Amino acid sequence: MGRSHGTVTQRLIGDHLVSGRMAPGEEIALRVDQTLTQDATGTLVMQELDALALERVRTEVSVQYVDHNILQADERNAEDHLFLRSAARRFGLWFSKPGNGVSHPTHMQHFGIPGKTLAGSDSHTCAAGSLGMLAIGTGGLEVALVMAGRPLHLTMPEIWGVRLTGELPPWVSAKDVILEMLRRHGVQGGVHRILEYHGPGLASLTAMDRHVIANMGAELGATTTVFPADDAVRAFLDAVGRGADFTEIVAAPDAAYDLAEEIDLASLEPLIARPTSPGNVVGVREVAGEPVGQVVIGSSANPGFRDFAVPAAMMQGRQTAPGVSFDINPTSREILQDLTRCGATFALIAAGARIHQPGCLGCIGMGQAPAAGRNSLRTFPRNFPGRSGTDDDAVWLCSPETATASALTGTITDPREWAARSAMDHPAPEAPDPVSVNDAMLEPPLPPDRALGVELERGPNISALPELDPLPDELELPVLLKAGDDVSTDEISPAGAKALPYRSNIPKLAEFTLTRLDAEYPRRAKAVRDDGGHVIVAGENYGQGSSREHAAITPRYLGLRAVIAKSYARIHWQNLANFGVLALEFDDPDDYGRIEPGDRLRLTGLHEALAEQGPPALRVRNTTRDEEYPVHHRLSPGRRRAVLAGGVIPALAR
Amino acid sequence: MGRSHGTVTQRLIGDHLVSGRMAPGEEIALRVDQTLTQDATGTLVMQELDALALERVRTEVSVQYVDHNILQADERNAEDHLFLRSAARRFGLWFSKPGNGVSHPTHMQHFGIPGKTLAGSDSHTCAAGSLGMLAIGTGGLEVALVMAGRPLHLTMPEIWGVRLTGELPPWVSAKDVILEMLRRHGVQGGVHRILEYHGPGLASLTAMDRHVIANMGAELGATTTVFPADDAVRAFLDAVGRGADFTEIVAAPDAAYDLAEEIDLASLEPLIARPTSPGNVVGVREVAGEPVGQVVIGSSANPGFRDFAVPAAMMQGRQTAPGVSFDINPTSREILQDLTRCGATFALIAAGARIHQPGCLGCIGMGQAPAAGRNSLRTFPRNFPGRSGTDDDAVWLCSPETATASALTGTITDPREWAARSAMDHPAPEAPDPVSVNDAMLEPPLPPDRALGVELERGPNISALPELDPLPDELELPVLLKAGDDVSTDEISPAGAKALPYRSNIPKLAEFTLTRLDAEYPRRAKAVRDDGGHVIVAGENYGQGSSREHAAITPRYLGLRAVIAKSYARIHWQNLANFGVLALEFDDPDDYGRIEPGDRLRLTGLHEALAEQGPPALRVRNTTRDEEYPVHHRLSPGRRRAVLAGGVIPALAR
Repeated sequence: MGRSHGTVTQRLIGDHLVSGRMAPGEEIALRVDQTLTQDATGTLVMQELDALALERVRTEVSVQYVDHNILQADERNAEDHLFLRSAARRFGLWFSKPGNGVSHPTHMQHFGIPGKTLAGSDSHTCAAGSLGMLAIGTGGLEVALVMAGRPLHLTMPEIWGVRLTGELPPWVSAKDVILEMLRRHGVQGGVHRILEYHGPGLASLTAMDRHVIANMGAELGATTTVFPADDAVRAFLDAVGRGADFTEIVAAPDAAYDLAEEIDLASLEPLIARPTSPGNVVGVREVAGEPVGQVVIGSSANPGFRDFAVPAAMMQGRQTAPGVSFDINPTSREILQDLTRCGATFALIAAGARIHQPGCLGCIGMGQAPAAGRNSLRTFPRNFPGRSGTDDDAVWLCSPETATASALTGTITDPREWAARSAMDHPAPEAPDPVSVNDAMLEPPLPPDRALGVELERGPNISALPELDPLPDELELPVLLKAGDDVSTDEISPAGAKALPYRSNIPKLAEFTLTRLDAEYPRRAKAVRDDGGHVIVAGENYGQGSSREHAAITPRYLGLRAVIAKSYARIHWQNLANFGVLALEFDDPDDYGRIEPGDRLRLTGLHEALAEQGPPALRVRNTTRDEEYPVHHRLSPGRRRAVLAGGVIPALAR
Repeated sequence: MGRSHGTVTQRLIGDHLVSGRMAPGEEIALRVDQTLTQDATGTLVMQELDALALERVRTEVSVQYVDHNILQADERNAEDHLFLRSAARRFGLWFSKPGNGVSHPTHMQHFGIPGKTLAGSDSHTCAAGSLGMLAIGTGGLEVALVMAGRPLHLTMPEIWGVRLTGELPPWVSAKDVILEMLRRHGVQGGVHRILEYHGPGLASLTAMDRHVIANMGAELGATTTVFPADDAVRAFLDAVGRGADFTEIVAAPDAAYDLAEEIDLASLEPLIARPTSPGNVVGVREVAGEPVGQVVIGSSANPGFRDFAVPAAMMQGRQTAPGVSFDINPTSREILQDLTRCGATFALIAAGARIHQPGCLGCIGMGQAPAAGRNSLRTFPRNFPGRSGTDDDAVWLCSPETATASALTGTITDPREWAARSAMDHPAPEAPDPVSVNDAMLEPPLPPDRALGVELERGPNISALPELDPLPDELELPVLLKAGDDVSTDEISPAGAKALPYRSNIPKLAEFTLTRLDAEYPRRAKAVRDDGGHVIVAGENYGQGSSREHAAITPRYLGLRAVIAKSYARIHWQNLANFGVLALEFDDPDDYGRIEPGDRLRLTGLHEALAEQGPPALRVRNTTRDEEYPVHHRLSPGRRRAVLAGGVIPALAR
């Protein structure tokens, strides 16, 4: 197979390759060692395991986290937790109790092992690349199949070597590195790529700093991000008492990357993403002085001890500005323990912080919604419109340093400027030694003999998966919606306090589908569902953002049969296939402009185009305008079978 | 006026009496020194101040707290906070920022002064009786009028002397004292009464212990609770740096009470209120062994340092049972600071606690909703059906000791039994000395010249108060609802995450009115609103629970003109009058049984019955059944004018 182990990525893929060739664009299949699921996607995954009649997970480690929806605004939320715990016990997963922490840092602390592969039904699963793992966020059904022992299929991405040199200047931190990448390349810059960081600049970045950078690789649209397993990783594993799990994995001196990038860390300055895209990055000094109503520190994008301890040191003996809400979202129970032991928690509370339980919280729109139009600065990974829970929100993304300086002044503030005025050096707080290790809220898998007897606890809000019918050979359907570029899964199937409690209830959740773009979409879709359904036309990067397969299932439930887009975000494209929606791309992107909402499109010869060796080219006939557009799909043989059958589950049932 | 200062209550009332005679049943008017409002009731109060065209509050101290709705599930919540802050600045109030703490303990720490009167638009305002204040929870409009310099009107209650002897045994604490009162007397036991605690048993109860007891006097239906200002109060004020505010106020040795009660503290055992009433009290040992899914520590009913530090000591080095969510709701920022300084916060986190920001949270149904039918043990004051946010909830009320022992075992556990097994003495943790005092999140009133220029920030969710029309001389209306005994304001106008965001938006909030009793009530009421409206018939203690005037305004908005009940809870009765609803009582409670839903009732001669000197007796004609029932009202001349005019605001506008 001509495997080359020059890059860390190649070594990781090579060690897990089940089939395919490691050349960009080729379909590959990988053996997966670990999985993670969280509650917002996991309730469906557990139902899929049940539908697959799985006896017990076949992975080395599978963990079910509960971090997204822990507000518990009504009983549905607690029902989900009971269901997830029962499913974890039934299928042989670890179960991380609500309040134990966000999946990504918690997984890193307890289960991350250099050289292993990890599939997670959360788009920020890639954060584990910080430890020299190949960690891929993907749709829930892909994760379910992996748990059932099947390999993970993906298109071999290009490997993008990012060489780091120098050291970060004071008041600039890891978040500014990934914001610099977003400034340079935007939210589509990483599509079909794996980012691999290397170079001498790495030496000054801890494993948790790398987590920050790897995590938000998702915002570049990258398949994942990979760091080497070097001394920084060894130090991390030693600190959490798992030194024995360390293996060194570094790139060969002559490693060749498909693309090359270089960042001189010393040249970076504090950066910030303006509303409402992680790609709208500017220097903080360019927007300094804008009034701030809310500042939130935390989330899996800035989860480490230092991400809270530096703000605590800046806040020490000071007070947040009047009119500013300063919210702290600790990311794991153990990091909160360490912050509390060393006095950082005290300093934050005394300065006016609202300290919340460890979890995703406002990052996924579960609480902390800002007032409309008032600037909210967050160390989060995403600021898609409305994701905060507020229509017309104004969410900015920045480092803990920038966020804290702004909370102290009440306006967007470059931390260097604040530091100069405050005569303060950039703090470098040391974590307690040894760091807290506390696995009491991680329930281990039950032994197989006990697990088989566990009944799933399905509360009334846990709906069954919808039945999906096969794809007809011919479709003639109306274009119900014409979407622009970069539509996110937050716009397709919103998170937030209103919708998230229905993540286990497809008919209810479907009522929220695409309503940010068109409040009437669910009603209009249902009106034509019995006539065969509908089509959506979209621009570039359709379905960017999270891994939620709800963004495929709910429109499918409402009758979506095909999407025709200029291009897709990777995970959403997979999810569409998994649930039997045909994802097509325009051969000529200009044809996008020729279609209007309400046009009727006819697609014929679908069965041939989806046959194992069928040509992936099709022509779409616009019967309203009497035009034809050439389109194509990129489906592998396995995905072709799934789309033909109406989805992976009916395909497997055959 | 024959004032007697024998009891503490008489001294407090006597010192503030503006008019009336201190004899039970007489209408009295009191000068009020302080007010408190919180966000769930305060948005209406601030609109009322605006409707009254108030220039500046006339009280010594008025504080606007933000504690009820701080989840911020969407932008409405943040909008309310902006509106409240602007109103506090405009009208000359203190403003306590979200996350600073629950009004009652925060007020006690910063503003409580023995001998002062306090009116609050929160039913647990009575907690301040712990410091030797006369603190009365009442409807928001009453508080608005007090801020405008008017006296507070109430019916002079009976004074119920509760003599405490002995000392609490190990593992029994203040919560068990008030649960014992509820066990003996039920939720109507304190109606038209002020509880005054005295006797040698007081010496062993700290001011915060007394807060626990005074707070839940509300659950007895009492007008308020009063403790003497003695050495325990002096110690409390000294500790928070306000020793200069202390004045000794104790009962005369020969003080005579209208009613007498005695509790030997040494005879008490751990008690617990079963679902779904604070009056369903039994010994913990009688229900030991029941499985527990959730335990919550906190709320204004157990707010003190020891209420968290004792659980922390019990948890030290231990872990919560699997399957139990252990939630900690700190009640004020300063208490959380002290818990953090002394290691209690660390012990709780390490043991598996989910620590939340200081606030009311689950106590008012804002998050932490349990799974249906799963037992939730809480140190809260109330467990009315559905108040937790879960239909078919199973909430129990108990002490921190009982709650913690149960969180450790996973079943309802008598803490004495747990302690014996664990060989542990009842901990008596000492608060740090000096205690934390931190007023940085309390914004002081603006100086008058600056205040007058402040604009109210009314977001789109802040509706204007509805216009209310005068009472006709004659009504003939259908009985739209026949309610049973002890219907709470949580059933009339629910709190919780769904409804609470609309507390500033009467038309939206009205859609939730009485839906716990009849999901169709809002629709049915609107259907007959233009025909003159409707009547509600109710049993005993109608409107028990909170002070929310929404429970009067929203049914009034939907067309409610009169309620005929066997009896009323005090605050709701006042609120009905304030918003122009005629509250009548059956002369013969048996007549309640003769009326059925749908019957049409005719009331005539209303204007005469509400004239200043008119006889309060009326006859209700049931035209459906051709029967007549004698009824009466208890309205004072001022309230008669208000009901005639359609409410206090239209009455004042005349």
